[in-house]
Order: sequence, then structure tokens, then C-alpha cells
Amino acid sequence: MGLTATYLFPTDANQQKIAEQHALGLTIGSWTDIPHLEQEQLKKHKGEVISVEKGELKDTVKIFYPSANFSADLPAILTTVYGKLSFFEGYELIDMDFDADLLGKFPGPRFGTKGIREQLGVYDRPLLKAIFKGVMGKDLKFFSSQLEDLLAGGIDLIKDDEILFENELTPFLKRITTAKEIIHNHYENTGARALYAVNLSGRTHELHEKAEQAAELGANALLFNVHAYGLDALQGLRENNNVGLPILAHSALSGVLAGQAGHGYSYSLLVGKLTRLIGGDLSLYPSPYGNVAIPLSDALAINQALTEENGFEQTFSVPSAGIHPGMVPQLVNDFGDNLVVNAGGGIFGHSDGPTAGAQAFRAAIDASVQKISLQEAAKTSKPLQQAITQWGVIEPN
Amino acid sequence: MGLTATYLFPTDANQQKIAEQHALGLTIGSWTDIPHLEQEQLKKHKGEVISVEKGELKDTVKIFYPSANFSADLPAILTTVYGKLSFFEGYELIDMDFDADLLGKFPGPRFGTKGIREQLGVYDRPLLKAIFKGVMGKDLKFFSSQLEDLLAGGIDLIKDDEILFENELTPFLKRITTAKEIIHNHYENTGARALYAVNLSGRTHELHEKAEQAAELGANALLFNVHAYGLDALQGLRENNNVGLPILAHSALSGVLAGQAGHGYSYSLLVGKLTRLIGGDLSLYPSPYGNVAIPLSDALAINQALTEENGFEQTFSVPSAGIHPGMVPQLVNDFGDNLVVNAGGGIFGHSDGPTAGAQAFRAAIDASVQKISLQEAAKTSKPLQQAITQWGVIEPN
Ligand SMILES: [Mg+2]
Ligand SMILES: [Mg+2]
Repeated sequence: MGLTATYLFPTDANQQKIAEQHALGLTIGSWTDIPHLEQEQLKKHKGEVISVEKGELKDTVKIFYPSANFSADLPAILTTVYGKLSFFEGYELIDMDFDADLLGKFPGPRFGTKGIREQLGVYDRPLLKAIFKGVMGKDLKFFSSQLEDLLAGGIDLIKDDEILFENELTPFLKRITTAKEIIHNHYENTGARALYAVNLSGRTHELHEKAEQAAELGANALLFNVHAYGLDALQGLRENNNVGLPILAHSALSGVLAGQAGHGYSYSLLVGKLTRLIGGDLSLYPSPYGNVAIPLSDALAINQALTEENGFEQTFSVPSAGIHPGMVPQLVNDFGDNLVVNAGGGIFGHSDGPTAGAQAFRAAIDASVQKISLQEAAKTSKPLQQAITQWGVIEPN
Repeated sequence: MGLTATYLFPTDANQQKIAEQHALGLTIGSWTDIPHLEQEQLKKHKGEVISVEKGELKDTVKIFYPSANFSADLPAILTTVYGKLSFFEGYELIDMDFDADLLGKFPGPRFGTKGIREQLGVYDRPLLKAIFKGVMGKDLKFFSSQLEDLLAGGIDLIKDDEILFENELTPFLKRITTAKEIIHNHYENTGARALYAVNLSGRTHELHEKAEQAAELGANALLFNVHAYGLDALQGLRENNNVGLPILAHSALSGVLAGQAGHGYSYSLLVGKLTRLIGGDLSLYPSPYGNVAIPLSDALAINQALTEENGFEQTFSVPSAGIHPGMVPQLVNDFGDNLVVNAGGGIFGHSDGPTAGAQAFRAAIDASVQKISLQEAAKTSKPLQQAITQWGVIEPN
């Protein structure tokens, strides 16, 4: 029982030996120079090189670490498999495979794509999500008016700006109660539901109390800058039944951890597989299209890790930045139709305002479901027509 | 009021403009296209480019972020200054300067070098620290015997292996009570005190309860893999008066965050300045000498950040790996004499065993205080003589 870590190490003729030294050094220390009897005792603690696959620049090395050596939590697991190796130049941790026993210790998403769709009552199209815009230094009136405009345009989910923290003008608890009322009124008037992910922030040791308070006050989703706290903090929130809310995991700061060519974690492991295992219901990461972009291959690998069959609920993929209505066909082509279309500038930048901006997206999303072109759909949607005039249509490649 | 972040950005002819876009984008979003009245309102939230200094490959960019925009905690601060910028290729965060008001929100070390020396009653020499060796899969008897051997050799501090977590053979609480008794007996017999840093590990939301329990049971120091949890977790432990123990911050995993040339945090910021501000009493990081090494310039910059005058207690520098007794002159030459000499293999690899290994170090440390050569000191220390035969003497350059 245990886990197998997959690394890329700079290629080396002696890779097998190097890998064996690490497998020992990160578990029982040494092997050949200890007596046979002791070897018997230590066997179940011994790391093993599973495979070494030579490559041109990097060799792919798989090392097995027995569960006997660590508690079943990510701080212990990551410290074991990458705590020391992170200091070696060009050592990348690209994947981890957990034995069934260990995998069972992770909660996975409480809601996932299925649960989120149930909460919204939307089953047949990509969801539409917006980010509040320019709220820093603005008050609750401004916040309310943006929220109302977005809901009027057909938004399913809205999240706080991830750099909006506790502040006097729009306090955390006030944002929750204000949004709750507006979303409730919107539902009463239209029958449409929406989720608002309030930014759960502040000190680590206060997160649970704040999250519980948020839930009590009627918050219906949480935004969490997981990499500012460590993956285990999100897992703890997911497991807290007094919270019980959908969690939108934001990838802020993950560029340090996974964004360097040739070093660090792979995005698919960090923002994909692990974010899903710890219980992220939605995982937001840079799209491959905007000015804050990650490579398409990384974005697709994240998407796959969030959604492939692994016994857990699926996590919603939220590729973000640089998205306008004309990109919906490209998005669906790249990420499939069970995703969240997320926009900020692509909604607020619409020349007829955010309501029209949201409507343009909804029309583009409907077109993708009906498999008609955006140009065709624009004939019956003035907002989409206008968006196409502003930003054009990207034909999927 | 606020903080100024110092970055290295890849050099660009338009750097001033790029920096200004970031300063706005990470605060109020836009400036020139908003009405004058609103500008007045938003002024105190506006980020400012302080300076752009052109370099050959990288430009040094300083951006000021007003305190009005974030709560006074590192998750909020780091998300603000590096959450998004971490995705930009080659963007390094190398320093942060906090205004007095913000600086006052950090606790700094509870003990620091002064307090640790008081606890040990050792004022006039570098301290000697050892790491348990090969304890994985071993029981408390083995643990006790190593501890006794090390204490007999004159060790001041001992830490758990950072990859030793909660386990059946040497449970956390048993390690504490066992070590307490051995250290107490050693004090009764010799008058010498010692600190044992037990590895505080496991789930994030259980850390405080475990740390308080450790303190109640008589633990006298904590080892903490801070980068597996986030800096704020250590700060919380430091501020918990029911814990009140010296904290040894281990740099495991920081290679991902700071170890990449041309990206990420600087080591001096992460493992130096911030580790001190949040309250690390000792900061353990790779020495520039061993097989797990960081560049000398990084190690010296960490050391400076841990010890320079800044209104807080000093944090003990613990450069680690590749240290044997013959390196003490080099260590003291590089890091000054108010440091912790930390060894594993350099103690346990001594051909006469760990007690002699520790004695050899103590003789080398005494020689450095008396300003005599190791060769001279070895005349009255057989263990040092033997260590020199095994590993030689490195002459400081
Ligand atoms: Mg990478
Ligand atoms: Mg660096």
C-alpha cells in the first residue's frame, strides 16, 4: 500500500542508481549495509524504483512510497515525495498514483459537476460565470448593482475578485447577506437560480469558523485561494459538514508551483488531480487564450484530470481570462460541453453593458448546444451580434 | 500605508507602462477612463509604480500596494502581489517592504537567537544540532538510544527527520514524553540542557490542538514543514500562547517556490525575511556545501534576512546538509558565529559513532571560538582528530 510518484529528472546515464538512492534516502535511508534481520523489519518501509524511462532531456522516473511512512494527508505526502527533491535542479513532480486505500482517504468534491447542476437546475448546456469588476474601493450599492445586472443577463455563477479581501466597504458577511437577497429575488421573479462564491480569506486558523458563519448566513458557494493556504486547508473545508458549500478553488499563486518549464509540479497534478481529490467543486485556472495564459496542453491536461473517471465526482473546469462570446465554440471544442464559461472583460467590456454582455454569452452557449454557428445565432440575438462586431468569432481549430 | 513589492521582470523597453498596468490591474483595475470624482474616492486603493530600474536580462520593478486593499495576513498579501503575476514567465518576487503599521502586525520570533540561548544557557559559541538518523521503521528504544548518544556528545538541539510523521512505532506524543525524560535526566546528570524539536504534522485544522497538547506534555520545541501548510499556519502557531514553544521552520518543498533560477520567490524573502516575520525561531535551509545545495549567495542572503536589524528578534540560521566537523571554520566564516551548526551524516558517519561525532563537532566549535586551527584543537580531541582523518579540513576562502 502506498503511492507512486512520477517525476521527470534531467537525463543521466546513471538514472537507475540515482533513483534508487532517492527511493532509499526518502524512506529508510540505506539498505545494503544493514543486517538481514533488520532488512526484514524495514521491508515494508522501503521505497522502490518502479521504472526509469530514458528520454532525450528528461528521464521519467516512478518511485513507490509505502503508506507505512506517512500519515494520510497531503502535507506529509508532499513533504515525503517532493520536500527534498524540490531542491534538485530540474526535478519535476508530474503525477501521483494512490493505492485504493490511500485514495479512499480523500473526499473528492461534495457536489461536483452533477451537484452544481442540480443546485442550479441547469443540465443541458455549459454554465456561465462572471467575475465582479472593479469592486475595490466600491461599496455594497455598487456590488449589488453589478450582481443585478449580471443576473439579468442570465449568469449562473458569480465569484468575488480573488484579490477582494475583508474590507470596510463590502464586508464579507454583508456581501453574503446582500447577495443572498438579490439572488433570492431573482429566483422569485424568473425561476433562475445562481451561485455566488464569496472569497473566504484571512487567517488559516479562522477559516473554519468563518466558513461556518458564511454557511449559516446563507452563502451558497465559497471562493478559496487554495495555494495561499496549502491544499490540505481546502480539504479540511470540504470535509467540514457544518460548511457543506460548493468550493471554487482558485489557482492564484500556482504559477510559482507549476508554471515553470522544467521544474515544479505539473498543472494537471496540482490544479487538476489533487484539486479534485481534496474536494474542489470548481477549479479555476488560466485559459490558453488570454494575456494571462498557460499552454493549451497544460490546460487540456488539467481538464482531463478534473473530469476523467476515477471514482470521485467530477470537478468543473473553469479556464479563465481572455474569454469573449466569439470564443465559445473554441472553448467547447477544446474542453467539451460540461464546463463553466467564465468571463470578466468579455462581459463588462460589452458596449451595451454587462447585462447585454451576459446575454451575448448565453446566446453563444445556446448556439453551441444547438450546433449552429454564432453568426446564425446572432441573427436572433442583438447582444451577440454586437459582441461579434466588437471581438469577432474565433473558429475552432 | 501599505507594502512595496520588488520584482524582477524580463527586460522590456515598455517596462514602465507594463508595470503601471500591473499596478492598476492588481488594485483598482483602471484609472484614466474613470471620472475625476471617482478617482478621488479610489485614490487610496490605487497601486503605484515606485521605480523601474533597467537591467540586461531583468528589470527591477517596485510596486506599492495600499493596505486598504488587503487584510493584514500573508495569504491576502501574497495573493495580491503574486497571485496573478506568478503566471507570467520570468516574473520573480524578490522582496517585500512593509510599512511600520503593517510590519507591526507580524509577531516575529517568540524566542529568537537570544531566547533559544537563554533556554539552553549557552551564550558564547555556535550551537550544535543533530538530526535523528534512520528512525523510519524503528521503535522508541532506537529513538531513545540515538537521543542518549547525541546528548552524551554535547548536542544542544535535536530535530525529528522532517519525513517522520505520526506512526505506530514512534507516536508523536510518545516521542515527546520519551525525549522529555531523557533530556531531563541528562540535565540532572550534567547540567546541560537540550531542545528536541518534534515534527508537528498532520491535518491543517488539527495543528493547534496537537501543538497545545505537545506543549502540555512537555515538548520543548516544534519542527514544522511550513511550506507544506503555508506561511500563515506557522504564524498562527507562533501567536498561540497556549503553545509558546520555539519553532524550527523547515524549508522542505521551498525548492519549488524559490529554487528556480529566473522564477518564483527569492530564498531570502521566503526562507529569510518572511520566515522571521511570521515567527520562526530557527530557519533550516540547504547549505551551499552539500549534495542538496543552494547557491552561496542565496544562503548568505537568507542568513542576512534572518539576522539583520529590523526590530524583531533574530532567527537562528541553520544551513544544513554536507556539514562535517572540518567545515566549521568555513561555516563560521560564511555565516558568522551566531548560528546553529547542523549535522546528520557528519555526526552519525563518524567511525567511532554518534557520541564521538558530536564531540568532534563540539571541539571544532570550541576551536572556532578560541580562534585556533582545527589541527591544533585535534591535538586534545581524539574525536576531532578522527573526523579530520575521515573528512579533512576545509580552509575558509
Ligand atoms: Mg511545470
Ligand atoms: Mg528564485
